[in-house]
Amino acid sequence: MAKFRFHILYLFLTAATTASFEVPRLTMYDPRYDSHHLAGGQTLALPAATEDFESHFYNQTLDHFNYRPESYVTFRQRYVVNSKHWAGPGAPIFVYLGAEAPLTHNSKSFLIDIVAPSFNALLLYIEHRYYGESIPFGSREEAFRNSSTLGYMSSQQAIADYAEIILNVKEQFNTDNSPVVVVGGSYGGMLATWFRLKYPHLAIGALASSAPILYFDDITPQDAYYNVVTKDFREASETCYQTIKESWAEIDETASKLDGLSTLGKKFRTCAPLKNSTYLTNSLGGLYARAAQYNAPPSYPVTQICTAIDGSGPDKNTLDRIFAGVVAYYGEKLCYINEPTQPSETDVGWEWQTCSELVIPIGFGNDTMFWSEDAFNLTEFSHDCKEKYGVAPRPHWVTTYYGGHSIKRVLKRFGSNIIFSNGLKDPYSRGGVLENISDTIHVVYTTNGSHCLDLYGSSVTDPKWLTVQREEEIDIMHGWLTTYYKDLQVD
Amino acid sequence: MAKFRFHILYLFLTAATTASFEVPRLTMYDPRYDSHHLAGGQTLALPAATEDFESHFYNQTLDHFNYRPESYVTFRQRYVVNSKHWAGPGAPIFVYLGAEAPLTHNSKSFLIDIVAPSFNALLLYIEHRYYGESIPFGSREEAFRNSSTLGYMSSQQAIADYAEIILNVKEQFNTDNSPVVVVGGSYGGMLATWFRLKYPHLAIGALASSAPILYFDDITPQDAYYNVVTKDFREASETCYQTIKESWAEIDETASKLDGLSTLGKKFRTCAPLKNSTYLTNSLGGLYARAAQYNAPPSYPVTQICTAIDGSGPDKNTLDRIFAGVVAYYGEKLCYINEPTQPSETDVGWEWQTCSELVIPIGFGNDTMFWSEDAFNLTEFSHDCKEKYGVAPRPHWVTTYYGGHSIKRVLKRFGSNIIFSNGLKDPYSRGGVLENISDTIHVVYTTNGSHCLDLYGSSVTDPKWLTVQREEEIDIMHGWLTTYYKDLQVD
Repeated sequence: MAKFRFHILYLFLTAATTASFEVPRLTMYDPRYDSHHLAGGQTLALPAATEDFESHFYNQTLDHFNYRPESYVTFRQRYVVNSKHWAGPGAPIFVYLGAEAPLTHNSKSFLIDIVAPSFNALLLYIEHRYYGESIPFGSREEAFRNSSTLGYMSSQQAIADYAEIILNVKEQFNTDNSPVVVVGGSYGGMLATWFRLKYPHLAIGALASSAPILYFDDITPQDAYYNVVTKDFREASETCYQTIKESWAEIDETASKLDGLSTLGKKFRTCAPLKNSTYLTNSLGGLYARAAQYNAPPSYPVTQICTAIDGSGPDKNTLDRIFAGVVAYYGEKLCYINEPTQPSETDVGWEWQTCSELVIPIGFGNDTMFWSEDAFNLTEFSHDCKEKYGVAPRPHWVTTYYGGHSIKRVLKRFGSNIIFSNGLKDPYSRGGVLENISDTIHVVYTTNGSHCLDLYGSSVTDPKWLTVQREEEIDIMHGWLTTYYKDLQVD
Repeated sequence: MAKFRFHILYLFLTAATTASFEVPRLTMYDPRYDSHHLAGGQTLALPAATEDFESHFYNQTLDHFNYRPESYVTFRQRYVVNSKHWAGPGAPIFVYLGAEAPLTHNSKSFLIDIVAPSFNALLLYIEHRYYGESIPFGSREEAFRNSSTLGYMSSQQAIADYAEIILNVKEQFNTDNSPVVVVGGSYGGMLATWFRLKYPHLAIGALASSAPILYFDDITPQDAYYNVVTKDFREASETCYQTIKESWAEIDETASKLDGLSTLGKKFRTCAPLKNSTYLTNSLGGLYARAAQYNAPPSYPVTQICTAIDGSGPDKNTLDRIFAGVVAYYGEKLCYINEPTQPSETDVGWEWQTCSELVIPIGFGNDTMFWSEDAFNLTEFSHDCKEKYGVAPRPHWVTTYYGGHSIKRVLKRFGSNIIFSNGLKDPYSRGGVLENISDTIHVVYTTNGSHCLDLYGSSVTDPKWLTVQREEEIDIMHGWLTTYYKDLQVD
């Protein structure tokens, strides 16, 4: 199947992939839902909308690591404070590290429902530079113009921003001695890990949910992601897996016939005529990957899809079954597959981030339910990034700066107070830390969990294993805080 | 006494000081000696001159933390390898982190004499960007033109350079598993500490000699430096201390008389006529500070000076005695005090570094042998830096990025494998870590030691306590290496 990448606007690069469809982004929430609904059907509330949340802005330095005059330019960076449960000076501060999206918070979430009341904690949410209202250069258009303005967007600058704001907020609240724990999911979970490693004097611990910090520089096998997607479907249903595996050839065969694309368009009720079959296969592939990554209770989209595929009447052929899966995933709609859409700021921003600093090499292997010819090719990938932005990625810098190789030995002998939480149904979990390392590097995973599930708000439909995972995290963090306060009295 | 700073070219700012004379720079060696002689009378050899040392160049990235096109520019960075004692792949690598001077190495030094043979280690010396032969922008003139070219010089960029070169050298020598220990003195000792804290995955430990990592952001009292200088002189001789303390008023009084400056010029055999008495007092003050900082055996310059001051015949007045001290310090010369001289690249480079990132607030207190009106004034200092370079310093960034406040609690709970070595006669030692923190943060100081003394080559004239200090350091590092190799077998 032909490859396409940048030239199709509404496809975004997520991880650095030469696979023919978008790997789902490293975000906490299922992109299937619009910005007002979360995967679990929870309502999102923008900070201004809820009285417990106060929005503020900090004059942030554009470049923390350079002293040229242009580095001194500042921009307004948004942060949000919730002091509803805070016990006052000295009590803990939990900092949610914003990732590649505008800062939103849930009216329900692990932090709000459980963490804040458990620890009488202040909640601080900080928006990531270049997203939401935290845009340098006066406007999004200017900030995203080219690599000369985008060049200041990197994880290193972002965590330096967080360091400054944390110190500033502690000063404002006159609470120098408050222990700080940083929390993040997905890319935000990487940021939480990296913040703890680089700024241990500012955060006593980190909760890093679904953070694939090892999916760089070929530490994790390139095909790990799609192997898990395949495994998830196969575990849901062997026949479903077989149907999907066979469907690609069937689509190609249909497409090659007279009026084949039109037949496919009708069959899949596409929103616009199909120009080639690749577009369809890519869309389906992306759908399956997202379903696996965000395979959250109570709906479990992988099961939804497979139930529909398997449950179609005996008169249905492969393509009918595949379409039934699409309908099960999206619900009843007027049309599917190629809805007109605009790239979001996350699409645009994340593409830059993965084309500069965060090169995540994901490719197909030979043993998945997908087609197999697309391995990740760094040379080709770099060439395309260079063509698009004028600068090439630095694929080795993440591991040089943050580490990653021999992580077990390194973290055992240096790091402490990090929770790496994962759900093994999440394909990104394979790039996470899943192996017990030391008494103070905690690995907490669930066999049936999906991407960032533990950070969602609690719900009556939560399975027992999810409740247990969250309780375990609370226990660990309770231990950190107890030790911190004990040390404070001694030192 | 009037203040002067930037406008007198050959005075360089060392630490950020509004005291009227230069605080000695944070360099390992006594600047009294030219580049061919060390404090202990040892001979310096440039790498090319000794066959055990091989010079190489690495194409270094100009800005590691930014992805603008100009950040991708590279420059040739020099590093030097000595494999004379190396046992081959897997054996340890000791990395000397260059500081604010061209990379030179001694034919004798702690690394060469003791470390390399003790551990069968490879020695790697890396030159700091903007010094020696490691100059961006094609020429020193261009690199030092203004803040637009100087802006890339910071400790963060420097240790990122070191990270890249260490990885590159390990790859060249096919020795991925070699443990790396970083070593540095003075500013280089700060870099070693910071490297261990920021790149623990690349260095298993750091030997930081005379590294005043706490002389930032008012963690250390501003007057600590001159208090120690005073203490050193007072301990050498109470009468010497008294003579110096009285001399300032005497100089001012003489200067105020008819032909007073000419009298002073003759008395101190100045190389050019004195334009004011401040110049003389500043020179003397700087001399005493240097003598204290580099008060190394076997000559002990503070003792030399005081012996001369105290030993002048009973017919000699205060100024005669002070001049006798000058002669004892410099030796017999045709003239003293204002020799014609050019600022070195270190003078120029270090002034930029202390005016941008490394603001070290040192001022006089009320209880020294100096005059007391000059406290450190950050506003004034920042204003002067801004006037000179067009950009203001960021005095809080060092502590934000590296930490420093509550260092005991932080390092106890996070850091490991750092040796903080100091000699308490060194005025900079008061900005160092002198308090035992944990089992793996080692504080090794000598009561009578001076700046970076442990890193010098061993000599038959070494006092017992110096030999013991070095042995202790070797023992500690031996422990690190033993644990590392043990871990390697398990993991």
